[in-house]
Order: sequence, then C-alpha cells, then structure tokens
Amino acid sequence: MSSREEVGGSMEPSRDLIGLSSEPLSIERVYSSAVSPSCGAVALFIGTTREHFEGRRVIRLEYEAYEPMVKSELSAVCRDIRSRWPMVKHICIQHRLGLVPVAEASVAIAISSPHRCEAQEAVGYCINALKASAPIWKKEVYESEESKWKENPECGWSGNS
Amino acid sequence: MSSREEVGGSMEPSRDLIGLSSEPLSIERVYSSAVSPSCGAVALFIGTTREHFEGRRVIRLEYEAYEPMVKSELSAVCRDIRSRWPMVKHICIQHRLGLVPVAEASVAIAISSPHRCEAQEAVGYCINALKASAPIWKKEVYESEESKWKENPECGWSGNS
Repeated sequence: MSSREEVGGSMEPSRDLIGLSSEPLSIERVYSSAVSPSCGAVALFIGTTREHFEGRRVIRLEYEAYEPMVKSELSAVCRDIRSRWPMVKHICIQHRLGLVPVAEASVAIAISSPHRCEAQEAVGYCINALKASAPIWKKEVYESEESKWKENPECGWSGNS
Repeated sequence: MSSREEVGGSMEPSRDLIGLSSEPLSIERVYSSAVSPSCGAVALFIGTTREHFEGRRVIRLEYEAYEPMVKSELSAVCRDIRSRWPMVKHICIQHRLGLVPVAEASVAIAISSPHRCEAQEAVGYCINALKASAPIWKKEVYESEESKWKENPECGWSGNS
C-alpha cells in the first residue's frame, strides 16, 4: 500500500453530499457525514440568521432556490475543491429553504481531510463559492413585517453583476 | 445604539467556554454554545483520531493533560483571539481526555462572529495556538498494542523545544 493510499483511506470512497431542506439543519448529522477514520480533521462552517442587518432588526429570513441548478452548481464546487485540495475526503453541504428564524442555521458545510489545513482552506473556499454561484435568494423580514428580497452581492446570478 | 453595539450584540455578554472531559464530545453542544442571534457565522474545527500515523495502523489515542495549566493556557488563547478579532462573540473549546477511538473527536472548537471571515480566521488561529501551548499529551496505541507517548512537535512544552 502506498503512503498516499494509507493517509487517503483508499478503502472508503470519498463522498459529496449536497442537500436542500425546509427542515432545521442538524449540525451533528452534517458533521457525521464528513468524519472519516482516514482523517484527523473536520472543518465546518455554519451560516445563521443574524438579528440585525444594516441597523434594521431582522426577525427571520426566507430562502428560495432554483433547486436543480443549485445541485449542479454545488457539484461543480465539490469538483473544484477536489482538484484544488486532492487530500479532501468527504464534503457535506446542506442548505435550508423557507423560513429561518434568528440564530438558526441556513447553511452548513463540513469537510474532512487527513490534516487540518486542507479541510479549513476548503471550507473557506466552499462558502465563498456557494455564495458566488448557487441560485439561492433570501428575503429579509424586518420587525415591522416589511420585507426585502436580497440578491447576494457576491453572486454571479445577481442582476447587479 | 451605535452601529458597533448593533452588530456586536451588546445585550448578550460574550462567552469563553473551555472544557476537558473523558466523555465523547457532542458537536451539536459545542456548536450551540457558540451560536448567537447577533452573529451570522459559526466556524468549527474538530480534531479526530486517524487510523494511520506515518504508515502504522493506530487503533486509539489516549490523552492526558495537566488540567489547571490547560485552562489557564486556553484562557490566554481566548484573550489573544479577542484582541486580534474584536468582533468574535463566543468561543467554545472542548478537549477530550483518556481513550479516543478511531474517528472520534479529541478536540472541538466553535467560534461565532457577525461575519464569516473573523470566525474562520479565529478558529484556524485557535487550533494552532492550542497545539502550541496547551500541556496535553497523546499516546498512540498501534495494532500490535505497542504504544508511544507523543509530544506535539508544535508544542512549546515539548522537551524538543
């Protein structure tokens, strides 16, 4: 067995798990989907609804997505991660749709790798790539029940780009 | 209310939670300890037992710590993080002691901040600082039941330093 096979855990195939759900995200489940006996590291990023945006009180966010396109865009992000960080083992990306109250998770990403640097770099890249490429829109609902659909300013799908 | 107070969530005091335990770590609990309504981001890092080290099959790790010193060293790491990333909200660092089987977590870190960059940078800094400063030792137990106490090569407490 080569050293590469040993550290990469050739016995267990790598997984890309991409999901959209209107149910609350389980961080434990996202973590468990990424952990691997061949890896010493799992890095995670969780995006949550923040109660303020530009000085206005937000009471919830509402997410909508063009689902078939989200999955193909995020599959492309996974392929890109694997070409940049070949030691990455499992990638799990879950995004919630519909209403997401304050302090609840809208997106959860977990990535495992034998050593910590690759997993941490890949997660940072993944959330930036998701924001830039996935056709997901959010509506901010303010205290007054007034609301505003937001295009992600980083997103290539934005009408501003 | 100033803009800084709005985004920093002045109503909820910031928390540093540091723990050592011989029980399995709950990633959901570590995450929940860090999440905040004033924050849009939680970054996590989880270190797990890897089944191989330098070509040898590892069946478990055993961790020992000099507990009073771990807590003061990790409190200093938290203070350091707060001076470098003042927007960081909550910091949770949990380390497991005793036997940690393959694929189980030995260390879990979660840090929240209003925006994602600070949380991600702070978690990367935190795990490096923990490895460099905390008096925690691990014994690798190999398939043959042979074992070896390891000093962390990054650690300032190491006899090699």
